[in-house]
Amino acid sequence: MLPGPTNVPPRVMRAMLKPLIGHRGPEFKELFTKLLGKTKKIFETKGDMFILTSSGTGATEAALQNITEDGDKIIVNVNGFFSERLGEAIKAYGGRPVVLSSEWGKAPLVEDFNRIVKANPDAKALAVVYNETSTGVTVRALEQLGELCADYDMLLMVDAISIQGGDKLPVDDWNVDICVTASQKCLMTPPGLAFISVSDKAWTKIKSKKVNRSYYLDLQMYNKYIEDGYTPFTPAVTLLYALSEACDMILEEGLPARYERHRVCAEAVYNGMEAMGLGLYAEKESRSHTVAAVNSPLGMDEGKVRELIRTKYGIDLGGSLGKAKGKMFRVGIMGNVGSSDIMTTVGAIGSATSELGFKAKIDEGLEAARETLSRLPGRVN
Amino acid sequence: MLPGPTNVPPRVMRAMLKPLIGHRGPEFKELFTKLLGKTKKIFETKGDMFILTSSGTGATEAALQNITEDGDKIIVNVNGFFSERLGEAIKAYGGRPVVLSSEWGKAPLVEDFNRIVKANPDAKALAVVYNETSTGVTVRALEQLGELCADYDMLLMVDAISIQGGDKLPVDDWNVDICVTASQKCLMTPPGLAFISVSDKAWTKIKSKKVNRSYYLDLQMYNKYIEDGYTPFTPAVTLLYALSEACDMILEEGLPARYERHRVCAEAVYNGMEAMGLGLYAEKESRSHTVAAVNSPLGMDEGKVRELIRTKYGIDLGGSLGKAKGKMFRVGIMGNVGSSDIMTTVGAIGSATSELGFKAKIDEGLEAARETLSRLPGRVN
Repeated sequence: MLPGPTNVPPRVMRAMLKPLIGHRGPEFKELFTKLLGKTKKIFETKGDMFILTSSGTGATEAALQNITEDGDKIIVNVNGFFSERLGEAIKAYGGRPVVLSSEWGKAPLVEDFNRIVKANPDAKALAVVYNETSTGVTVRALEQLGELCADYDMLLMVDAISIQGGDKLPVDDWNVDICVTASQKCLMTPPGLAFISVSDKAWTKIKSKKVNRSYYLDLQMYNKYIEDGYTPFTPAVTLLYALSEACDMILEEGLPARYERHRVCAEAVYNGMEAMGLGLYAEKESRSHTVAAVNSPLGMDEGKVRELIRTKYGIDLGGSLGKAKGKMFRVGIMGNVGSSDIMTTVGAIGSATSELGFKAKIDEGLEAARETLSRLPGRVN
Repeated sequence: MLPGPTNVPPRVMRAMLKPLIGHRGPEFKELFTKLLGKTKKIFETKGDMFILTSSGTGATEAALQNITEDGDKIIVNVNGFFSERLGEAIKAYGGRPVVLSSEWGKAPLVEDFNRIVKANPDAKALAVVYNETSTGVTVRALEQLGELCADYDMLLMVDAISIQGGDKLPVDDWNVDICVTASQKCLMTPPGLAFISVSDKAWTKIKSKKVNRSYYLDLQMYNKYIEDGYTPFTPAVTLLYALSEACDMILEEGLPARYERHRVCAEAVYNGMEAMGLGLYAEKESRSHTVAAVNSPLGMDEGKVRELIRTKYGIDLGGSLGKAKGKMFRVGIMGNVGSSDIMTTVGAIGSATSELGFKAKIDEGLEAARETLSRLPGRVN
């Protein structure tokens, strides 16, 4: 139950064992072309899609590198470890981050975004971390930010690493120009692949850029090869096999059903924790459907809580990062999760915190989670 | 029999199916720390080792990015598609390539390297493509180039992508400061991982660099995390499982035995082709032990030759790239290869070229290959 890498279904793992193929041959072309189609369906975009052999951070940098000229302003919401990292990456590529800070555990409001965009109409892009994995916070205003950016000559770049495939994000409908995600989160594929969608509006910025600062992360280079069905550099073929199977599973379930499953599972965790007497790190209206951040009770060291849960109950939970270090732990609700995972996890958290001295109301917690999960359809419940 | 990705032994493929682990937990730390030790043994280095989730090109760029300041001179030998690409990558990172050209199919001589290094003592590095995969040429002077660079304040950076693990390259003994390779070649692991070794001399250059132009490819960032046994970004864990198994196989065979096996197998291909009446693309003294470039006979379209071999004999061969396009095809001799692979391939090339109108002396070719392969020890013969 980590917030990535997430559990990979056996069907997806097994797919990796197909014999390797050359990445310049017809079989690869067929696989890759189909994969672009499948991932576009999941992103709900008719724009261009790129699949890179890298982690999500690599793809985020590819996105930044391809739009940023030295000195370019990029607005970025910072409210956790990963959005801080995004701000740093903007600097590494010569950009100037204009930071919209909010407290960790909170998301900026639409009016905050409006204000900063209006004050910086010359910014090249608004970069939004849609789901701040370190704090369990989702920027619910994303659709409105798309409308905002559509009114300006400003790109909307979205870091959707820990959320795409687990919560709503129709790239074209929401005017997202560049959307980035990675394989090991809601796409329930082993880590090693990352994805970037690019709109026509984004292409005009990419093409007009004077200096190209990378080769491996150059989207124009990828574009040239993609026209023929290939990648410019050797791709992680076994992971593409896995991805293909995972996409099939995602599309078989259907995006709305999938998002609803994640929402209900997340709510079951939140309700379970609260009923048990545990506090939640994120403000109610911004709580993520793919990762839940739970406060460690009684100033208890979260490392100890997680270690006990890992060794005694066999469940891996996420630790805390940056300035939340030691204060909370995180439950990933990504991809291949259902009732039994949630119930087991809620129970283990109750038992472990009790064992460490917190009087968790375990029965109430389990009952609240169970009650919430009963809303899932029978097939996954 | 592609020049990458190469055949992955079933034992290595199966290793990928272990359950996924979190990349911030103790099991990962143990796996990763052991892997650094194993890969250092293969590189024959006591220096630092980095394992990136990227293709070889990504690692090459990481090497360049971390040493190159805007305007820095880097000498590079260009004699094929991949060394041309390296020259381009140097430019992308703000460097100025000083090109030592030689004809495709040939390697520059030591005196050529001496001359260009002496004429450019201010160059930051000499970047050498040790094995030009596109033409089947190995720079046999590498050890001497290490001595040359040791006399200057100049780094020796080696692109060993298609050769490390298949031919001799003792990084420390040969004074190689930065050595780059990838998983899918002689390391017989699926594609998606790349490797960089870094000497102390290289670290002084990396640390004194003023501007850092990447985040995902920042070796100082990797170094910080490696001290604790981790990677800064999500690594491709299933590929690390495979790599671990492959390293065990490599170290069980032993490096000298492994290099000898590659050498004999390559020689069997060369002897087989020549006895059959087919020409070889690379000059005799520079012929690679990991990839053989064979001229297409009678101006025959190489695409047709490969297509026939692929469909009728089930063997994938490498095509020709860049200005050799259409004129030759390539046989990969990397990693998991032995007598039966070589014999089948030699036979298929003979039959296919015959079917397309070339009077290949098939019997002579097979006999020459067989005779050469008899030098292999019984275990792999």
